[in-house]
Amino acid sequence: MSKYKLIYFDVRGRGEVARMLFTVAGVSFEDKRVPVDAVEWDEMKSKMPQHVLPVLEVDGKQLSQSLTICRYLAREFHLCGKTAWEQAKVEEIVDTMEDLRLEVAKWIYEKNETKKNEISEHLKEQVYPKFAKILETSLRGNEENDNSSGYLVGENLTLADLSVFETLTFPLTIHPSILDDHIELQQHRHRIKTHKRLSDYISNRPLRPV
Amino acid sequence: MSKYKLIYFDVRGRGEVARMLFTVAGVSFEDKRVPVDAVEWDEMKSKMPQHVLPVLEVDGKQLSQSLTICRYLAREFHLCGKTAWEQAKVEEIVDTMEDLRLEVAKWIYEKNETKKNEISEHLKEQVYPKFAKILETSLRGNEENDNSSGYLVGENLTLADLSVFETLTFPLTIHPSILDDHIELQQHRHRIKTHKRLSDYISNRPLRPV
Repeated sequence: MSKYKLIYFDVRGRGEVARMLFTVAGVSFEDKRVPVDAVEWDEMKSKMPQHVLPVLEVDGKQLSQSLTICRYLAREFHLCGKTAWEQAKVEEIVDTMEDLRLEVAKWIYEKNETKKNEISEHLKEQVYPKFAKILETSLRGNEENDNSSGYLVGENLTLADLSVFETLTFPLTIHPSILDDHIELQQHRHRIKTHKRLSDYISNRPLRPV
Repeated sequence: MSKYKLIYFDVRGRGEVARMLFTVAGVSFEDKRVPVDAVEWDEMKSKMPQHVLPVLEVDGKQLSQSLTICRYLAREFHLCGKTAWEQAKVEEIVDTMEDLRLEVAKWIYEKNETKKNEISEHLKEQVYPKFAKILETSLRGNEENDNSSGYLVGENLTLADLSVFETLTFPLTIHPSILDDHIELQQHRHRIKTHKRLSDYISNRPLRPV
């Protein structure tokens, strides 16, 4: 068994989906949480391949890029679909969630109050509905393919489900009504939250705003 | 053999790496180029799963997200490394090139001349050197692992090499000196450009600014 170490800041951010993959797979790892703005990070930074986090270490070998890390772990843990096409559909959803993350990031980093409100309106009126529709279509398409699992791709939980769950967690704190008109997405979220290998973890993990 | 159709605008943009993958693999595909701003696109848009391009059709099934499409094709065509770790290193480079693309996009979309110049300076002084260093480290690391191929990962050309080649093509038109101090990256670029399965394609493809 490989020895895994995930190095990331002490937030969910770009590290949480990887943590959830380890949890679902039941694979132990060192969850190295570097305090944000700490001297420790200044000292570590130059040793990280791209001078950013997260970094996954596998038997001492380093891997950068959060999405690459998630896909690598998902393949190792058989959480990325059963066929080449299912794997592609999993990755399509993960990349779609990255698009959503970038839209929400505009709100996070905007300092000007007027512009922040404009972004907020744009998110609520345009962005969230667009992504909700894409996800609903995926869920329904999976069911039409005789997968009544309630997951996004194939018969089992995959990286796609975790990515959707985590990517919506922060937006739901600033815009709690996002899923009000989307019962299937509410049910999907509940399914992940109560998954037998995730529910304890989600209930007990450190509370962080992002 | 699957029947492939790549639907994208008539530019390189987010479709060109997929076209290069087909070319390297010697796999025929329909290269559907939709004129930008054409009525045709207005009519097609609602039939595309995420209302954007590129879309890859495989025996009529649709796949969105340019990076997902590239990784899917690279796996199908055995152009993404030979081991799980090599595949991860290929994807790490592809995601790193996406970071670079997003930095360059800021320059493309900035209308204000003063801000555009500031972004230009930032690209030249900070961004390009950072990415050049990451790529040089990958090339040297691969060689140290007894791969004298001159490619970024493993013994053969992969999606990573194509991604680097294509992502630098536009920046080199606005900042031609990017690689002046990086002889290994110049050699790598030359290696791709003269690859026996790519040189004709690169010489004869439609000339597009992006």
